[in-house]
Parts: sequence; C-alpha cells; structure tokens
Amino acid sequence: MRHLTIEDIGYLAKGAAVLGTGGGGDPYLGKLMAQQAIRDKGEVPLIEVDELPDDALVIPSAMMGAPSAMLEKLPNGGEPEAAFHAMESFFGREAYATMSLEAGGINSCIPVYTAARTGKPLVDADGMGRAFPEIPQVSFSLGGVSASPTVGCDEQGNQGVLNTIGNAWVETLSRTVTVAMGLSSVIGLYVMDGKTVKEHAIRGTISLAIEIGKRIEESHLNKVSPVDSVLELTKGFRLFEGKLADVQRELTTGFVRGRCSFEGIDDYKGQTLTMDFQNENLMAFIDGEPCAMVPDLITALDRESGNAITTETLRYGQRAVIIGMPCAPIWRTEAGLAQAGPRFFKYDYSYVPIEELVKEWRR
Amino acid sequence: MRHLTIEDIGYLAKGAAVLGTGGGGDPYLGKLMAQQAIRDKGEVPLIEVDELPDDALVIPSAMMGAPSAMLEKLPNGGEPEAAFHAMESFFGREAYATMSLEAGGINSCIPVYTAARTGKPLVDADGMGRAFPEIPQVSFSLGGVSASPTVGCDEQGNQGVLNTIGNAWVETLSRTVTVAMGLSSVIGLYVMDGKTVKEHAIRGTISLAIEIGKRIEESHLNKVSPVDSVLELTKGFRLFEGKLADVQRELTTGFVRGRCSFEGIDDYKGQTLTMDFQNENLMAFIDGEPCAMVPDLITALDRESGNAITTETLRYGQRAVIIGMPCAPIWRTEAGLAQAGPRFFKYDYSYVPIEELVKEWRR
Repeated sequence: MRHLTIEDIGYLAKGAAVLGTGGGGDPYLGKLMAQQAIRDKGEVPLIEVDELPDDALVIPSAMMGAPSAMLEKLPNGGEPEAAFHAMESFFGREAYATMSLEAGGINSCIPVYTAARTGKPLVDADGMGRAFPEIPQVSFSLGGVSASPTVGCDEQGNQGVLNTIGNAWVETLSRTVTVAMGLSSVIGLYVMDGKTVKEHAIRGTISLAIEIGKRIEESHLNKVSPVDSVLELTKGFRLFEGKLADVQRELTTGFVRGRCSFEGIDDYKGQTLTMDFQNENLMAFIDGEPCAMVPDLITALDRESGNAITTETLRYGQRAVIIGMPCAPIWRTEAGLAQAGPRFFKYDYSYVPIEELVKEWRR
Repeated sequence: MRHLTIEDIGYLAKGAAVLGTGGGGDPYLGKLMAQQAIRDKGEVPLIEVDELPDDALVIPSAMMGAPSAMLEKLPNGGEPEAAFHAMESFFGREAYATMSLEAGGINSCIPVYTAARTGKPLVDADGMGRAFPEIPQVSFSLGGVSASPTVGCDEQGNQGVLNTIGNAWVETLSRTVTVAMGLSSVIGLYVMDGKTVKEHAIRGTISLAIEIGKRIEESHLNKVSPVDSVLELTKGFRLFEGKLADVQRELTTGFVRGRCSFEGIDDYKGQTLTMDFQNENLMAFIDGEPCAMVPDLITALDRESGNAITTETLRYGQRAVIIGMPCAPIWRTEAGLAQAGPRFFKYDYSYVPIEELVKEWRR
C-alpha cells in the first residue's frame, strides 16, 4: 500500500487525461479538488485490488455529464460525499473503499477526493482503463454487475436514486436527470463487494496514470520527448502531427459531440487527420482512412508539453501529436466490442486493433 | 366512514373526469384498474380528513405524464404498490392511508387502486379540487409541504427516488425521468402526517366526484339534463354549446399541449369558442374574449351523455357543452394565483373569477 500525496495528484490528473482520450473531464478542476481534500484531510491510501477483503463494500464515484458543462458549472464539493453516504445508508453498512470507474482528468481525481473526504482508501483500478461516454461501458457491466442502485447529486443539493431493470436504463434515466440538473452531476453506482472487484476490475489504472503524468512532467527536466515517454508506457503509436484547422462541437443529448481536423506538419505535411468525439475521441482518420478505432485509445497531446488536450479545450491553431494506444484486452472480446466498438457508435467499420491498423496504413 | 363499491368507482371515474378539466387521465382506464382491485381485494374504506390521527402517515399516489401516452403505454398494475411500499421503507413505518392529489379519471382512481391493493383506507380529499398539469400546483405546496421524497415507478420495473431542494425541482426532474420512461409513470409524493392533511387538504373531493358521476348517470333515468345536474352540484356556468371544428395537439416537454375550437350551435350559432390546454383546459375564449380562466375549471361535456371529454379524446365533429366552474378558494389567493393563475401559464390576463366574467360577457 502506498499513500497518494499532493504531488501524486498532479501526476494523476495529467496522466489520467492521456488515458481519458479527450474525455473524462478537465484535469485542472479534478486536480484542484483532490489536492485540496488531501490538504484538508490527509494523504489517501491507494490499495491493490488483491488487498480488498472479499466481502468489502466498494462504492465507486464519478462525475457524469458533458465536460464542457463541468467547466462552467462547478461542483460545490459536497456531492461526492453526499452520494457516497447515501449509498452507505442504502446498503445499511459502512463502505470499505472507493474506486474510479474511468480514467480521466476528473473521473480519476473525484474518487481521490471522495476517499480523502470520507477517510477511505482508493482501489488502484477502474472499469475502463480509459474513458468512455456511456454508463454501461465498464468491465463490471460486461461481468454482469448491476449499475443500480445509482445515486446522483447536483451542486444545488438535489439528489436522486435509481433502481433499474438493466444498466442501459441507468444510462437513459441518469443522463436525462443529469441534463435537467444542468448537464453535470456526481454519481455513485456499480457498488460491488471485494470479490467482484477482483474478478472484473481493470487493475493498476491509477498507478499507471500517475506514472504517465510523472514521465510527462519529468521529460522536460530530462530533455526527452514527453510523447515518446507516453508511447513507451502505454505501448502506443504516434499517428500524426498537425495543427488544428477546424473543430465542430455541439452539446446534444447530454454529450459533447463533434469532429475536428488537423493539417499535417513536418513528416505529415499535405495529409489531414480528422477525429470524431462523443465526450471521448472515438475514431481517427488520415485522409479519410481509419488509423485508430474505439475501443483503442486516441489522444491528442500538446506537441510541446505532452499534455493531453481534452475535447472541450480543442482550439484552432493548436499543434498536437495524435497518438493511439491499445485498449484493455476485455474491450477486444465480442462482448466488449458490442458494448464499445465502432458499430456501437454507429460507425460502419469492423474493429481492427491499432497494432494491425498501424501496419496497414504505414505500408 | 363509508366503503367504496365497484359501482361507486364507475361514478367516481365519471365525476372526477368532470373536475379533471380535460386532464387527470382517461376515466375508462382508471375505472377498470380500481374496480379490478376492489374485486380482488374488497371494498375500500373512504375516511373523512378529520378521522385521520394527527401522526398518521399519509402517502398520496398519482400517475404522472401525458394523458395521450397513458392510453397507449398501460401500467402493469404493480407500480402503485411499488411506489407506496418504497415510500414506507423510506420512512421506516407503515402508512395509515393513501390519498389523491388531483381529481381526474386516472388520478382519482389510482389512489383507490393503491388503497385496495395495500389494504389501506382512502382519504376523502385531494390537493387541487380539480386537475393541474404541474407537481407544485397542489394546496400542500402552498402550505409549505415538501413534494420530496418523490418515488417514481414505470411499467417495466424501473424505480427512481428524488430528494430535492424545492418542489419546482421535483417537477423538473421527475418530468424529465417520466419522459425518459416513455411519458408516463406512477409517483408517490407529498407524504404528510394527518395534522398536515387536516390543515391543507381540499376536503370532500372524492365524494363530490362520486356524486357528480352518479347524477350524470341517473339523469338519463330521470330524464333531466346531465349538464344541469353537474352545474347544480358544482355551482358552475354553461359557457357555450358547439361542434368541435378544429383541434391541434402536440406532445412536448412531457405534456399534451394544444388548442381546439368549437363552432356554436343553437343559441350560440355564429360564435366560436376556443380552448387552450396543457394536459388540462386552461383558458376559454368566445370570439377572442376570455370567458373562463385557470384556476377556475373549464370542462367540455358531451352534449348527449354529459360525460367529460378529456383533451386527448377531443375529436372533430363532437358536440359539446363547455362549462366553467369556480375553483377551490385557495386558488384565488395571491399565492394560489402565482402558482396556477393565467400568468403562471404565460397568459397576459389578470385573473377574473368566473362568476364575474360571466356577468361581463353576458351583458
């Protein structure tokens, strides 16, 4: 067991944003919240999945909504605890730990915040190994775990609890409540015992994110390329380097949806990469041909700093390196692709793993 | 205390539809559900407000949504009990009785159904003395009673519980959930103790509705006008007789909204009455001048049978008598008009009680 320090949180926010593939929330906001909570309440124990007793009650927490809205409608800070304690009363027992459901600037940091405020450890795992836009897109869902009961809290003090007949209904109903709450809310869901976490969690996501963030940060001191450091840690591929020429973004049905295009620079001059997103980056095409597909990770990194660029901070003229990283193996199974592959997102492409795609279009 | 029989329910559905002012749900569906429950479980005790112990837990139940949707997406019959029992667990004690929140074909009958299925008495009262489209529009809300916790259940088995910072938030959030559930749900809300019911309920609404229904039914045997019978009981006014010439209706933001117009017949020949509705009839105009205004009751009765015509069953060619009836006194207070007067519904008219309006336009 290690303890997460204020310094670790800086790395975590930075690294989780890389795994967040454009989504998962703004790293700056998540970092500030988690660091303040550690300052107030002390460092947070980060425990391995195998350290959980089988009957431990684990209550994950997350922020739901459109990242663009979270930048304007800030949490009041009480929601994560409110959701956590509402869930404890629902189950009539004390929780053992909290956990992250997805990797991302906010959704890796909110659970640290919850852990610090409630005095519980954080489990070093998540349910995606990246960020996805919809609630059923977690490894736990594939393992048959119910997202219900789901507790949602807004910054004004409104609270809702859902018990549904399936995880897709949690997505539908809690998305609609979140939209009515002003496009963001803090939720608690996929409550599990330790045994279930051991069976279905994607392990080590928090420590991987910290390591990625640390390597980006230290690359400047060591005068190495931050992008190369990230690629090394994530077994990823450099897809493109370019200047952001166009971005279309709209808030619809509770998501930020859009498309952006980069004009190639240096080795990529004359080529164009377009990238589609729904909160998270879903597909990348070079001159119209797919070069990376969901559920593999696609992230735009700032060319100088190596910091991830989230979909809501894409701006004209940004110079970026677009990278692709292989997803957790569970997403490449038939069930995983049905839940989070290109066809789930209405793309008429059969999934090709990034390692294969890279061979093809580099030929 | 009397007991509601299967025959009473026939009268109740018919009479409540008159008080429902076009809304409150389809009387046929409500009647069938309540009658079947009495057949299965026995007659339902109807108790006076003053028979409630001060500390009695009273759990009202209602159907929420667009009446048009309720005609197509039928309840499965388990929702009212599910909502009722969820509320009992929430408060950790057994309820003493259930109650109606509004008068209407469904919303007067659903509480009878709940009462029969749970073996509890029904309180002879409601919170409107009519039907209104929005959740905060009940006398309890004016008396400072919280609509939260609110439990909502759909026919598939999904359930949601809301705890909000105000009754307007219950309207916003539960309407949005109801829309996502397919435009109708069964809800439990405005849980109160007996003392609060005594202070704020509109008394005798159930027995009044039964009496209205009975008089309509018996008018055929007694060869008297059913319309006159209704007007006598409700101290109402005959506004117009006409043939339905046009109806525009749309389902939007969870409501049936629209306008219809009647071409005058007999004494009203050459005149036109238009009527606006949002689930319930809100305003009636004769040749452009208001002849009845919300919160007073405006109902179209079938000219032959005297049965109320709900907004979702308005059809070209129907011959109707449009009547206006004075609302419960609480709606004529400043607070009542702010919550349910013409300006609340965005009409640029100051409320004039129907008794006064009738004098004006009959001059």
